[in-house]
Amino acid sequence: MSLPAAALHDSPVPAAALPPSPAAIAAVTQALAARFGNRLVTSLAVRQQHGHTLTWIPNMPPDAVVYPQSTAEVSEIVKLCAEHGVPVIAFGTGTSLEGHVNAIYGGVSIDMSQMKRIVAVHGEDLDVVVEAGVTRKELNEHLRDQGLMFPIDPGADASIGGMAATRASGTNAVRYGTMKDNVLALTAVMADGSVVKTSTRARKSSAGYDLTRLLVGSEGTLGIITEITLKLHGIPEAVAAGVCPFPSVKAACDATILTIQTGLPVARIELVDDVMIRGVNLHSKLGLPETTMLFVEFHGTEAGVKEQSERFGDIAAEFGGGPFEWATKAEDRSKLWQARHDAYWAAKALRPGFESVATDVCVPISRLAECVEETKKDIEASGLIAPIAGHVGDGNFHTQPLVDLDDAGEVERAQAFIDRLVKRALAMGGTCTGEHGVGQKKIKYLEQEHGAEALAVMRTLKRALDPRNILNPGKIIAL
Amino acid sequence: MSLPAAALHDSPVPAAALPPSPAAIAAVTQALAARFGNRLVTSLAVRQQHGHTLTWIPNMPPDAVVYPQSTAEVSEIVKLCAEHGVPVIAFGTGTSLEGHVNAIYGGVSIDMSQMKRIVAVHGEDLDVVVEAGVTRKELNEHLRDQGLMFPIDPGADASIGGMAATRASGTNAVRYGTMKDNVLALTAVMADGSVVKTSTRARKSSAGYDLTRLLVGSEGTLGIITEITLKLHGIPEAVAAGVCPFPSVKAACDATILTIQTGLPVARIELVDDVMIRGVNLHSKLGLPETTMLFVEFHGTEAGVKEQSERFGDIAAEFGGGPFEWATKAEDRSKLWQARHDAYWAAKALRPGFESVATDVCVPISRLAECVEETKKDIEASGLIAPIAGHVGDGNFHTQPLVDLDDAGEVERAQAFIDRLVKRALAMGGTCTGEHGVGQKKIKYLEQEHGAEALAVMRTLKRALDPRNILNPGKIIAL
Repeated sequence: MSLPAAALHDSPVPAAALPPSPAAIAAVTQALAARFGNRLVTSLAVRQQHGHTLTWIPNMPPDAVVYPQSTAEVSEIVKLCAEHGVPVIAFGTGTSLEGHVNAIYGGVSIDMSQMKRIVAVHGEDLDVVVEAGVTRKELNEHLRDQGLMFPIDPGADASIGGMAATRASGTNAVRYGTMKDNVLALTAVMADGSVVKTSTRARKSSAGYDLTRLLVGSEGTLGIITEITLKLHGIPEAVAAGVCPFPSVKAACDATILTIQTGLPVARIELVDDVMIRGVNLHSKLGLPETTMLFVEFHGTEAGVKEQSERFGDIAAEFGGGPFEWATKAEDRSKLWQARHDAYWAAKALRPGFESVATDVCVPISRLAECVEETKKDIEASGLIAPIAGHVGDGNFHTQPLVDLDDAGEVERAQAFIDRLVKRALAMGGTCTGEHGVGQKKIKYLEQEHGAEALAVMRTLKRALDPRNILNPGKIIAL
Repeated sequence: MSLPAAALHDSPVPAAALPPSPAAIAAVTQALAARFGNRLVTSLAVRQQHGHTLTWIPNMPPDAVVYPQSTAEVSEIVKLCAEHGVPVIAFGTGTSLEGHVNAIYGGVSIDMSQMKRIVAVHGEDLDVVVEAGVTRKELNEHLRDQGLMFPIDPGADASIGGMAATRASGTNAVRYGTMKDNVLALTAVMADGSVVKTSTRARKSSAGYDLTRLLVGSEGTLGIITEITLKLHGIPEAVAAGVCPFPSVKAACDATILTIQTGLPVARIELVDDVMIRGVNLHSKLGLPETTMLFVEFHGTEAGVKEQSERFGDIAAEFGGGPFEWATKAEDRSKLWQARHDAYWAAKALRPGFESVATDVCVPISRLAECVEETKKDIEASGLIAPIAGHVGDGNFHTQPLVDLDDAGEVERAQAFIDRLVKRALAMGGTCTGEHGVGQKKIKYLEQEHGAEALAVMRTLKRALDPRNILNPGKIIAL
């Protein structure tokens, strides 16, 4: 290289010493208490809840939790923390799966739950402006009367800010895209407390660097998202949903591949394997046959969804699947999707008391059947209990090993299995994370996935935008 | 701010002195000639062609033009130029409209026309990997036999690299999105010559910062795009297209708004005003009635496009438009779209020999009718000849003033008109550029649109990734 490698990476501002000194923490906590009163909390229970993660990563509580009510307050908090070199970690609903909200170096958790204003609904433009603490269910509740919906659905009732920060997606992404595709603009507080509005409400723009997409998926490491402008969609005239059993995981994946390749506009196509179905039956008191299933949904006109459902039934039959039983009644659909959404908890029913570990690979659709099949064999060979569910229309699936954390051998086997799973997905042209994000535990896979040069660029961005390394330090890029 | 403002902006590497010294230019040119032989050209005609822009911005030719044949060669060229502080400007087909390829400070134009490999078509995954010099028509020619298409269509037969670099879109964006939505991954050469692969072929990923979207729309100022992985779509079973006359621009816009708001899945919906139709008739020897028209296209099944065309006809009638004459025969459609695509040249037929100036605002769809109407009145009041055409389904439209560059008063009136047009669009929540990009002439609007804080972040990104300011200097962000 013609420029010394360090040239692109050095920052003129020294990074804060992490962890911050007890004096720095005390100064920040006292100043926040004086400013925010009982909206600054330091009790252990609340701090632990804000380090809580739905994973096997240990709880790392922040030193304090503060509840701002506006972007201006978030800016004040960040400026104060920046002055003292104290980390700030944005907190939505705590439903992320990779330790995103853990305070590795201590610091202040900024809980967005008091920022719940739905600022403006522009029905005629199919967009909405919300504060970061609004959850997706709250938003849809608010929109329903106007015939509008926000389709992105990661399962958990996550906050919109958190969903943007992790580039979330979920069951509807095959039809409606991910958060990357559905955020029109963001307001974010940067590392120096400055407030940035990334874009306008125009549907498209070529006006400069895409700061929106730079912040979506940045997990609070480049800025704290406080307000989001989202695309909306009309509630479809008709919805058809159903389940379809398959003789094997391979048959279900092959049916999915053909569905996508023929351009059938499926709104959701979810794989649930036989092991997961057993959990779903236990948890949701259902009597589904314990074989691999596809949960499928179509959105359109009455005639359209009927035609599409029938076409899907034909495709399923080609691979020995079926019958595809579908319904357009809302109650039937709700019960079905509740069962699918509860899969995370259902899985735990298979081995009560053990820790559930999330995995999240995504591969090009042509490799899906192969990847899922090899993974299932690997689970068996590893002696693990690990049900599989996935948003297979995107090539994204989750295995969920249930691990006895007191059994060091089992923990090691589970970790080795996950490492192989990621390696397998990367070898097939895929990614280590389709939608959960990097957080703490996937940092080690990023270089394998992106290469050293791309990692260097990411590191340069982090250093440029957060030179003191106070924004959620230790996530995505461990400087 | 708790950190000094300069802290985020200072770079430890001194920016190259621009323009570079004659000695630096000579050293680079000699080294490139020794390495690339007749693939290094310094003749005035070729240099001028590489500074050529389809606008009123003066031609600013580079000092030399080089024709690499691989990413590795681009990397070599960039390393050499970086060493000597000489600017590098990527060149696709030269069809950009804001002076993107002009060599403001001289330097080396990297012409991608010898990088035309279609590296891999993955039909089963609906994606393709191409080198940056492949044009959209070349790609579609290659794909046709496989029943696949790349729908993004900016009118000109632009290179895929150039389209990615300007975040292009065009007539099909209302249905298929823009380049932002259709690029899965990029290979780019960064300012230090390092080669970065931004992502995998997975349909979605949450694995770190979105380098793909950071480079899409960066106009060669953050990296030089050499290879692109694009999403593809199946060629639709049926296509229906037609034209629909309207009594006024307002009526046509109102019909567009209702079409979008009711969720009719239109693939193209193009406004051409009465003035532009006159040009189209002159240029394409057509006999269209000289009134505002919508050119509309639907993609789907035979039954689907029929139903949609009929629904659109009903909407048009509500606003006094129609009859909507549509056809599904390929020849009829081609002639129609050729006429629409030739609008740029057609407009020039209205005032032969005068310069055509491109404008490109985009507003939320609810404000479209108002924005176009006010603009039309402004054109009349300004005494300009400026036909209007637009991708109105996205709220994006172009006026194209035809200006006598020898008449200083007219040039001033045209510029004042454009300034008012942008101000009007921004006041309505829109953007100064929907798809053309910033280049040279829109830099002055960026702060109005994004605010000083967002501009500071963009500047920080530019300084971090191109500390010597050698990548297309003077575009987007004038450091």
